[in-house]
Amino acid sequence: MTANQKWDELIIGPALVTMTDNGYGLIENGALGMHDGVITFVGAAADLDGEPDALAEHVSYRKGIVTPGLVDCHTHLVFAGDRAKEFAMRLEGASYEDIAKAGGGILSTVRATRTASDDELLAASMPRALNLLHDGVTTVEIKSGYGLDFENERKMLRIARQIGALTGQDVHTTYLGAHALPAEFNDDADGYIDQVIEWLKPLHEEGLVDAVDAFCEGIGFSPEQTRKVFDEAKRLGIRVKLHADQLSDLGGAGIVSDYAGLSADHIEYTNDDDVAKMAESNVVAVLLPGAYHVLRETKQPPMDALRKHGVKMAIATDCNPGTSPLVSLRLAMQLATTHFKMTPLETLQGATLNAAAALGLHDRGALKQGMKADIVHWNLEHPDQLSYWVGGDYVQDVYINGRSVHRREQAPLI
Amino acid sequence: MTANQKWDELIIGPALVTMTDNGYGLIENGALGMHDGVITFVGAAADLDGEPDALAEHVSYRKGIVTPGLVDCHTHLVFAGDRAKEFAMRLEGASYEDIAKAGGGILSTVRATRTASDDELLAASMPRALNLLHDGVTTVEIKSGYGLDFENERKMLRIARQIGALTGQDVHTTYLGAHALPAEFNDDADGYIDQVIEWLKPLHEEGLVDAVDAFCEGIGFSPEQTRKVFDEAKRLGIRVKLHADQLSDLGGAGIVSDYAGLSADHIEYTNDDDVAKMAESNVVAVLLPGAYHVLRETKQPPMDALRKHGVKMAIATDCNPGTSPLVSLRLAMQLATTHFKMTPLETLQGATLNAAAALGLHDRGALKQGMKADIVHWNLEHPDQLSYWVGGDYVQDVYINGRSVHRREQAPLI
Repeated sequence: MTANQKWDELIIGPALVTMTDNGYGLIENGALGMHDGVITFVGAAADLDGEPDALAEHVSYRKGIVTPGLVDCHTHLVFAGDRAKEFAMRLEGASYEDIAKAGGGILSTVRATRTASDDELLAASMPRALNLLHDGVTTVEIKSGYGLDFENERKMLRIARQIGALTGQDVHTTYLGAHALPAEFNDDADGYIDQVIEWLKPLHEEGLVDAVDAFCEGIGFSPEQTRKVFDEAKRLGIRVKLHADQLSDLGGAGIVSDYAGLSADHIEYTNDDDVAKMAESNVVAVLLPGAYHVLRETKQPPMDALRKHGVKMAIATDCNPGTSPLVSLRLAMQLATTHFKMTPLETLQGATLNAAAALGLHDRGALKQGMKADIVHWNLEHPDQLSYWVGGDYVQDVYINGRSVHRREQAPLI
Repeated sequence: MTANQKWDELIIGPALVTMTDNGYGLIENGALGMHDGVITFVGAAADLDGEPDALAEHVSYRKGIVTPGLVDCHTHLVFAGDRAKEFAMRLEGASYEDIAKAGGGILSTVRATRTASDDELLAASMPRALNLLHDGVTTVEIKSGYGLDFENERKMLRIARQIGALTGQDVHTTYLGAHALPAEFNDDADGYIDQVIEWLKPLHEEGLVDAVDAFCEGIGFSPEQTRKVFDEAKRLGIRVKLHADQLSDLGGAGIVSDYAGLSADHIEYTNDDDVAKMAESNVVAVLLPGAYHVLRETKQPPMDALRKHGVKMAIATDCNPGTSPLVSLRLAMQLATTHFKMTPLETLQGATLNAAAALGLHDRGALKQGMKADIVHWNLEHPDQLSYWVGGDYVQDVYINGRSVHRREQAPLI
């Protein structure tokens, strides 16, 4: 670094949680410089070469901690309607049959999403993206899968892109046509899968598909159907991921490993051999404690095997209207400590570096020179507190590409 | 109502969640008028007599829902230090012995709280009170119990009062001298209880004690010691409440019933007879799903018996640094749906009417003429959504005594 190097922004004073060296990589009394959307200085304030005021356009002196922007690598946050009524009915003792009769379940979300205009779908989805942003999420994956026909899958993916343009978040889109069987294909899952495959190419050509996903489960699609979808993705050069082994072991994590996929998600029932395959193929385990919590699951993901084989573990909100109406990634981290006994460090790795890896991204998730200047300044003293406090708002400032996109408006009263 | 009645504030349009008639008491397209700190009109907008602009100083037209201000009737939010490090150590596999050696546990909070100056203690505690406020809590109970000597118990209670003056929240103080045994009374619990009793009168005379509490448990104080503290409270005319039957059945809920107490709190292990006694004595059951969640408890409170006997159920955060670092009452409501299978309606009753009853208050917790004008305007469509969404910020506006004390600064982007 030379004294005449200038930064757009220079933040001085907080502890930097750099997420390097397989730990927090804490730098107390740090300095972080950003220029042209990229991190250009990370170090101790004492190592700055020259007077700060001469070094940057904007200099701010702060306490607290600075982490990389959080990455939510598994969401279904674009949808219309919600399922709060169904949620209440279940707690009032309604059976699944009662709920189906009342028009509930995933197909109710499909109906609402199909019916919604573009504007309505955007308006319904924006609060979820903003809630994530306001709790530190700067990169977010958004899946289709409530359209289940060409026009409506496209509508969902376009809205996902539009959300990114409006919030500033980097949105990664995933085509999840193989999410559920729409009513018009009743008893013809194979016929529907043929359609899902046919729709992929035009959606991809429109630039709407960053990855391809499927729901491989007894109540979803079979391993064979999953492979057919993945074959087409492979042909088109698109990376895959999978809702795998959530309710039973269908070998989903093994399938996604065969395709050198990005991630196997949920994986409560994944067996040891498939965990080993994930490690070999560098497939990230995306753990979703929100659904586990809301569904009161008791079967944990194979934590010991994941650690033993060195599989990268990410954590995501799985934000969706049925099984995980969770709109805070930091809260997903907390839930992972309670339900999966993950350590605070593991949960932060899971929401930064490992979540970025689950999206195939290696330019973020840590504070390093040259990385994307996505950072969060928290009113906290130590990164352990991120998963320790349950709820609450500790964000002071969120930067995306070196630009402040959300700042706490109310100063602390004292 | 007459056309010449004026209000300071008149809110028109939202659905009013009045919490009357043992239900939500929903009024669609409602109107709510406030004057001199009190609710002066609750009804359908169509029933307003005259043109709104002529009826009030400030008229606002809104969507969403309006509920009574939430009441958090059990917190320990005044403390210094936190126990995030201990939390991390436990998840990293440390034993309780390791943690004790590292200076952890409740006595570490006592040390930090005793050491803190008034200003430091206030600064440490304010973010917790503000986090509660920003998620809709307008009345909050705050306990002492980390001072464990006269000066420091007094310091805690004074800071609690000061928090109310700063945030506008109505703070109800509880003297919990009988929380834990301080090191200087090692092996002399009876001697310490004598001190606790001696300190009560001067603290009460200073106006610092709205209620008296104790921790009746194998690791806390015995039923006999609890009764001694309660006898003194009774003599001074102060209502009691109890940390009862959390880890074992010591008959705590029965004891608090004998004293016609306000509430029995936790009560996971309370037996059916004591639930019946609570019903007879009109003792509120304060359920604390945050501690249940963080401690991964599996023994639920006796939900069926509570419902059968018609005991009022309240929900609180139990905000404390060890077992429940929970700073959102709405999130406590969500945890109560997952862990205790309470319905969304029960959780909102538990955070409004029943929580007010647990503090002996009958002037709040519902939207009714003459009640305290503590209200929350939420960007939600139905009150079921309050416990459905996990995390997120849905508060648009919080009023205390008819005055806006917290307003969402950032307008939705669309």
